[in-house]
Amino acid sequence: MRIGILGTGVVGQTIGSRLIQLGHDVMLGSRSATNEKAAKWVGDNGQHARQGTFADTASFGEIVFNCTSGQVSLAALSSAGAESLDGKIIVDVSNPLDFSKGFPPTLTVCNTDSVAEQIQSAFPNTKVVKTLNTMTASVMVNPSLVPGEHDVFVSGNDADAKERVSDLLRSFGWRTIVDLGDLTSARGAEMVLPIWLRLMGAFKSPVFNFHIAR
Amino acid sequence: MRIGILGTGVVGQTIGSRLIQLGHDVMLGSRSATNEKAAKWVGDNGQHARQGTFADTASFGEIVFNCTSGQVSLAALSSAGAESLDGKIIVDVSNPLDFSKGFPPTLTVCNTDSVAEQIQSAFPNTKVVKTLNTMTASVMVNPSLVPGEHDVFVSGNDADAKERVSDLLRSFGWRTIVDLGDLTSARGAEMVLPIWLRLMGAFKSPVFNFHIAR
Repeated sequence: MRIGILGTGVVGQTIGSRLIQLGHDVMLGSRSATNEKAAKWVGDNGQHARQGTFADTASFGEIVFNCTSGQVSLAALSSAGAESLDGKIIVDVSNPLDFSKGFPPTLTVCNTDSVAEQIQSAFPNTKVVKTLNTMTASVMVNPSLVPGEHDVFVSGNDADAKERVSDLLRSFGWRTIVDLGDLTSARGAEMVLPIWLRLMGAFKSPVFNFHIAR
Repeated sequence: MRIGILGTGVVGQTIGSRLIQLGHDVMLGSRSATNEKAAKWVGDNGQHARQGTFADTASFGEIVFNCTSGQVSLAALSSAGAESLDGKIIVDVSNPLDFSKGFPPTLTVCNTDSVAEQIQSAFPNTKVVKTLNTMTASVMVNPSLVPGEHDVFVSGNDADAKERVSDLLRSFGWRTIVDLGDLTSARGAEMVLPIWLRLMGAFKSPVFNFHIAR
């Protein structure tokens, strides 16, 4: 599959490399077509890796991952353009963390809204699926890094889109995929970030994950 | 120990009954000294159970549990009075859920503040410990209801108070008690409620709990 990834940070690079490993063609997108981090990533990831602008990347992908920071996701997607996203699944991995006032960070949107819903509302002809935002990047694409049972959540309004994204998650190694419901449930997934950050502090490591015991 | 419990709902009654079972003397407090739910609970729980006003209950308890709804906790504690709470540990189990606009509910405070911090700020001579708010009442006092490993969180500014509350939690059967840090970490614990409610919807049962796999 051709997959576009918006965002050249650790999350975008990690998901991109894993998708290439799994046989997909991946474009990493940023504001600039010559972004240095993306260029290095392309160099490291062989012939199935490429880079482009947000618009190039959205056009390229059959599925588009939003791996930008939640604070700038709407701007990045607007720069990609509604036409290039039309009809596509957007896998929203973002978190709206604002560290500008120090620790603890706050969320720039929460409680009555979420980044995922904002994206869905701004791009009504896309199918937004929120997932993977509740764990560190290395665990997203390699759940076996954390021992024992643990879970990934999906939220979205389109059942088929959630199923296609779940197929990708299973290809990453996920076994327990919990469907939280429609896209308003992304509020819950995004609002676990404050406790996630405290847990990282308590354990002095980001390599952990939520499991729902039942 | 003499323990005061503010709030006569399921959470207050369940914790109160368990504490009596463990050998403590418990007063269940409400706005009225003759609250009918509290009277029934006293009748059901024998000679170590009693009821009173919020003020009676705070005065009675060596430790005071806040089991009122987070929306009215400050009012309940104000009615109890700062003098009767002076120097005591307040175990804050509340969640600031607002169902007045239907489902999904919202939190009346979150992100930059929490009920626990509001209580600590209003009653600076108390030691507030946030805990037990991330699971259903039956699991709070009987963690073995949920199979496998799963966790309870504590937040608070006073290490000794957290340790005393952890002793109580161990007496309930808790084995993994995760110290999230100072009381600002209660924001994280309160902000898991939106995902908790979605999980209850997905599993069609409240009998589950978070485990941090690592």
